[in-house]
Amino acid sequence: MTQRPAVLIMQRHLAPLSPILQSAYDVYRFWEGPPIEAAHDIRALIVAGEAPLDKGLIERLPALDLIACFTSGYDGIDIDWCRQRGLPVTHAPGVNHEDVADHALGLILAARRQIVAGDRQVRSGGWTAETRSITPSLGGQKLGVVGLGAIGAAVARRAETFRMDVSWWGPRPKAAEWPRADSLSALAEASDILVVACKADETNRGLISREVLQALGPDGLLVNVARGQLIDEDALIDMLKSGALGQAALDVFMEEPTEPSRWADVPNLVLTPHTAGATTAGVQGMLMLLMQNLQAHFADQPLKTPVE
Amino acid sequence: MTQRPAVLIMQRHLAPLSPILQSAYDVYRFWEGPPIEAAHDIRALIVAGEAPLDKGLIERLPALDLIACFTSGYDGIDIDWCRQRGLPVTHAPGVNHEDVADHALGLILAARRQIVAGDRQVRSGGWTAETRSITPSLGGQKLGVVGLGAIGAAVARRAETFRMDVSWWGPRPKAAEWPRADSLSALAEASDILVVACKADETNRGLISREVLQALGPDGLLVNVARGQLIDEDALIDMLKSGALGQAALDVFMEEPTEPSRWADVPNLVLTPHTAGATTAGVQGMLMLLMQNLQAHFADQPLKTPVE
Repeated sequence: MTQRPAVLIMQRHLAPLSPILQSAYDVYRFWEGPPIEAAHDIRALIVAGEAPLDKGLIERLPALDLIACFTSGYDGIDIDWCRQRGLPVTHAPGVNHEDVADHALGLILAARRQIVAGDRQVRSGGWTAETRSITPSLGGQKLGVVGLGAIGAAVARRAETFRMDVSWWGPRPKAAEWPRADSLSALAEASDILVVACKADETNRGLISREVLQALGPDGLLVNVARGQLIDEDALIDMLKSGALGQAALDVFMEEPTEPSRWADVPNLVLTPHTAGATTAGVQGMLMLLMQNLQAHFADQPLKTPVE
Repeated sequence: MTQRPAVLIMQRHLAPLSPILQSAYDVYRFWEGPPIEAAHDIRALIVAGEAPLDKGLIERLPALDLIACFTSGYDGIDIDWCRQRGLPVTHAPGVNHEDVADHALGLILAARRQIVAGDRQVRSGGWTAETRSITPSLGGQKLGVVGLGAIGAAVARRAETFRMDVSWWGPRPKAAEWPRADSLSALAEASDILVVACKADETNRGLISREVLQALGPDGLLVNVARGQLIDEDALIDMLKSGALGQAALDVFMEEPTEPSRWADVPNLVLTPHTAGATTAGVQGMLMLLMQNLQAHFADQPLKTPVE
């Protein structure tokens, strides 16, 4: 046994953190097999906040005294359950909301101005002397933002530069420069483009229901840069196929990685592999907060960015 | 012969104008065969300004007294030659520069944030539990605008919203809120992203030369929403293949439609079929100016938007 605290990385896509963490900690990787021999040493779990946390595992780690989310979101974690066990949770807020908003605008442009479809058309020889694609101008389109947090507000600011008319809805009124719709359905009904930018938790699973998608309608574009569970994904697929919904551009999915066959026959769709917040700058910011939270925790100092 | 003036539409992709023009004019379509029987009646040519104008044809149309470009650009037309013949040229300025700028940002986001590549990755099953793509943040990237006209300035304003640092170059100094580089090479050298947004004419063919692309370099992104002839396209292809240039996103090409095989083995590339300015709103605006110019011309009124 060593004097260095032991930490366990849960998700395989967080493997690049391993060499950095090893500078200060004994690092175990869950996908290499459950750390049975180190079960009594592990003090912290390093997790992606969107992944469901295995409570059974936590109960088998008696020395565990920190859950450190690499991400800003922590929707996979039952915060109340952790609080009852006296188990603090940290995360990485405020480091990538601008990048997520950039990506949301990228998805709007890719879908509305047919950039992904246009690239496919040019490469397949579908651009001929007879064809000239006309795409809709963004000017004057009505953008509805679901959830006016840091990401939602950053999306709204960008949308104004693109001459869109912005409104928003969230469960609680707040001071904002854009008007709040009376309800989510009213927002969808009034919007050409709906961007989902809210925090996901157990209370708002399936928030973007079939009814909301119907209100958005056959010319509407749904953009999701929040979490897959916020959307009734089966309804979304049905409605894209039938034309009841115009377009969708998704960075997040019910299951990640999402199964390609699920989307093969679905038209008017842009898909990205959960990259909205995973930028060089964002990842550096998240890494810095992770290291600061771990260091503070093991030095018995106040945590840098705990989940309140 | 009829009392209505005869007009000749030159390019096949302008065919949708035909029914609208027929409300007031006798309309001939060049691709249906040269209008030999109407050669003495045709008063106006309706053209796409980027297509090279056939001077021989003009000399065979004795009644011709107007060249009406449907587009804003008129780089296919030898304005001096027309002026010498007393042949006025009209175009459609100021109706789609905001849409072109939107598309330029869409191309930057599609390339830098890997939206086109990400869509391909998700659909092909390339997104797995082991992979997590990290893309570069736009924040702090240095954007160089080549040509600070209406489009260039609109690109610059949008880029600031995305936290990019803007500078520009054009042959003539002008009052602007962004700094002007000493030369095009200096701009390319200092830029992460170079957006070509200048007017094309015979003086600037091949302006974006191999040397300029080399200055932009292996991490650089070239975006072209102006005209294909502005770029040494063969050098661009070589340099993308060798990695001497990082990425390109092109809406315009040396020849249009461009041959897909030309781009098949070229990496780090986003292609769209000259759609930047072809929006619903842009096309409506162009159509309105075209009709106003024709009407003014045939009523002996001052032209609405002549090329000066």
